[in-house]
Amino acid sequence: MREAFRNELDHLADQLVQMSELVTQAISLANKAILTADIDLAEQVIDADVAIDNLQTELDQNAIDILATQAPVAGDLRVVVSALRMSASIERMGDLARHIAQQARIRYPEQVIPGSFLGIFEGMARSSERIANATQQLLSHPGLSEVPNIAAIDEELDNLHLAVFNKIAEEHGLKSSTIADITLLSRYYERFGDHAESIAQKVEFLLTGNWDHREAQQP
Amino acid sequence: MREAFRNELDHLADQLVQMSELVTQAISLANKAILTADIDLAEQVIDADVAIDNLQTELDQNAIDILATQAPVAGDLRVVVSALRMSASIERMGDLARHIAQQARIRYPEQVIPGSFLGIFEGMARSSERIANATQQLLSHPGLSEVPNIAAIDEELDNLHLAVFNKIAEEHGLKSSTIADITLLSRYYERFGDHAESIAQKVEFLLTGNWDHREAQQP
Repeated sequence: MREAFRNELDHLADQLVQMSELVTQAISLANKAILTADIDLAEQVIDADVAIDNLQTELDQNAIDILATQAPVAGDLRVVVSALRMSASIERMGDLARHIAQQARIRYPEQVIPGSFLGIFEGMARSSERIANATQQLLSHPGLSEVPNIAAIDEELDNLHLAVFNKIAEEHGLKSSTIADITLLSRYYERFGDHAESIAQKVEFLLTGNWDHREAQQP
Repeated sequence: MREAFRNELDHLADQLVQMSELVTQAISLANKAILTADIDLAEQVIDADVAIDNLQTELDQNAIDILATQAPVAGDLRVVVSALRMSASIERMGDLARHIAQQARIRYPEQVIPGSFLGIFEGMARSSERIANATQQLLSHPGLSEVPNIAAIDEELDNLHLAVFNKIAEEHGLKSSTIADITLLSRYYERFGDHAESIAQKVEFLLTGNWDHREAQQP
């Protein structure tokens, strides 16, 4: 019985890893779609999001079944509740990758990102892929080493988000709808980072018991 | 013992209502702050957000204690897990009210919203207060009557969000940073509605067992 319970917890952990693998793929394709105005890649990300949603539904159902049948306490209970919360964050990261792809699709065949902003958004694309990879690593091999890495990349994304606003304020001649598009796009990347950071904080808590309830805050 | 358990579930429900009351106050003050460039109200909303965060921490701890000590199953388990999820949505609504107030503070003493957009944002302010009130009603007196109302107001907010983009595309002479500001602001209102809708769906599920796992989607 005890071993069956361990297997169930392991299965939850595997489902989190699977979800994060799909998110890593999604953000990587969404980045290519938005940077190169590739409608096929955009459609692929949009269509694939349902698989992440379905995995979340399954994971949440499994977590609730474990609560009902095993009545875990203490550390095991924290693991199950944290899995429910982390699955919500990962699912939301998938949504944000989909939103980025949707921006590419809405403006196709036009480029969403004007040339003068390409450098900043290439930076956001790289940081978002690194933070997705780091999150996947963290969930595959839980340990503290990825936690400061994820916090650092989240800060990179926050700084790039601010850089977008500073550049918008000093640029002239941009189309109004372009400014609206890149503002939203930048926000999506920044929120993507926040959710990864929120997952990292939960893993850190599970491993150490240290918990400041601070959720990632945005300016 | 059974009565003690009922009392604990009632306490969770009360805490959700308390959180939603604070969110209703926060969005109402944030709206006044942003529409009238009132820095004192903005500061008030920003400072008050910590009370919502603290209530969430307490509620979540209570929910976890109930899971640990009462090992609820079936409907009771769903209630506790849903309370955890709803508290996350309400806390996020508080964050979004704070973000709106922060926009007012960043630009003070300037107005964030240009005159030509005031009508749309007054509409968003009204809808956001109505949806916060409806959410508070729903949590105070759980029943299905508020559910379609909340869905309708969420749709109003989605439509107003689209109206902001359409108007941005056709307006000329707006400052670049103004366009970025009102794009973000509009997104905050739209997300505020999404979270209320997500809470309404969870209550509907608890009352009826009908559950399409669709989370509120944005364009």
